[in-house]
Amino acid sequence: MTNPTTITIPEGLPFIEIVREFDAPVEAVFRAHTDPELVKNWLGPRGYEMEIDRWDVRPGGSYRYVHRDGDDEYWFNGVVHSASIESGIVQTFEFEGFPGVVSLESQKLEDLGNGRTRVIGHSVYPTLEARDGMAESGMEQGVNDGYERLDELLAKVSV
Amino acid sequence: MTNPTTITIPEGLPFIEIVREFDAPVEAVFRAHTDPELVKNWLGPRGYEMEIDRWDVRPGGSYRYVHRDGDDEYWFNGVVHSASIESGIVQTFEFEGFPGVVSLESQKLEDLGNGRTRVIGHSVYPTLEARDGMAESGMEQGVNDGYERLDELLAKVSV
Repeated sequence: MTNPTTITIPEGLPFIEIVREFDAPVEAVFRAHTDPELVKNWLGPRGYEMEIDRWDVRPGGSYRYVHRDGDDEYWFNGVVHSASIESGIVQTFEFEGFPGVVSLESQKLEDLGNGRTRVIGHSVYPTLEARDGMAESGMEQGVNDGYERLDELLAKVSV
Repeated sequence: MTNPTTITIPEGLPFIEIVREFDAPVEAVFRAHTDPELVKNWLGPRGYEMEIDRWDVRPGGSYRYVHRDGDDEYWFNGVVHSASIESGIVQTFEFEGFPGVVSLESQKLEDLGNGRTRVIGHSVYPTLEARDGMAESGMEQGVNDGYERLDELLAKVSV
């Protein structure tokens, strides 16, 4: 089963909000975000290959990965401020195609009971222009694809 | 000599901008921000004692410190995304008195020539309320004091 993804681009504020529910327990959703062997099976658009250069998602850790679409490569990197079920995941995010434009991403995990979880994403950009650039980059498709792939992963494996 | 500090709290945007010039070369200003033995001599309000628990200001590093005012303690921590003269210093910032409210701070260093440097600070908060809380926290005094103390440090030592 697939749940809807709500993406909000607030007028005049440099935020992107993404809310999504999953039919899986909070521990499984958290592990799917932090274990690189799981992450690479769902993060990003369908048809892209993800390769992880570094994935150390714990407070004080850092990450770097590439999404490959044929010969095209899209590299991303950041550092991790928080990573726990209680505090959520708070990390910086930089697309290396626009070096120096760094945003801050927060993902809170809400235990809805009955083995269900709500993920509340809140990203903060350094300027409205940077936020608009991200919103217009096709990220909506990537988020929807990624979360559908995460549904499939959570249904398939006992994470 | 002390230069003016310009602090801008833009209406309706969750930013704080701080611009300050220093009569010192960019290398010295950068070292004063990254060497813990120098940092603890200028960061924060006059009359506070700063003690560093962790200060690893390099990409992928992290920091934690306390400002002490008598028996009162104010702890801060974050992780470092960038730290170089070219890219500036980009790091997360959390006041442990409000745990979970994480902002992203960027400090760019402009070489003005003739041994002078402009520091351009741009902080981004997760909500307007968090920005307003910081703006009303007395941080202006802390910034002005800190930068005057940095002037004194830069004049005194060959950093």
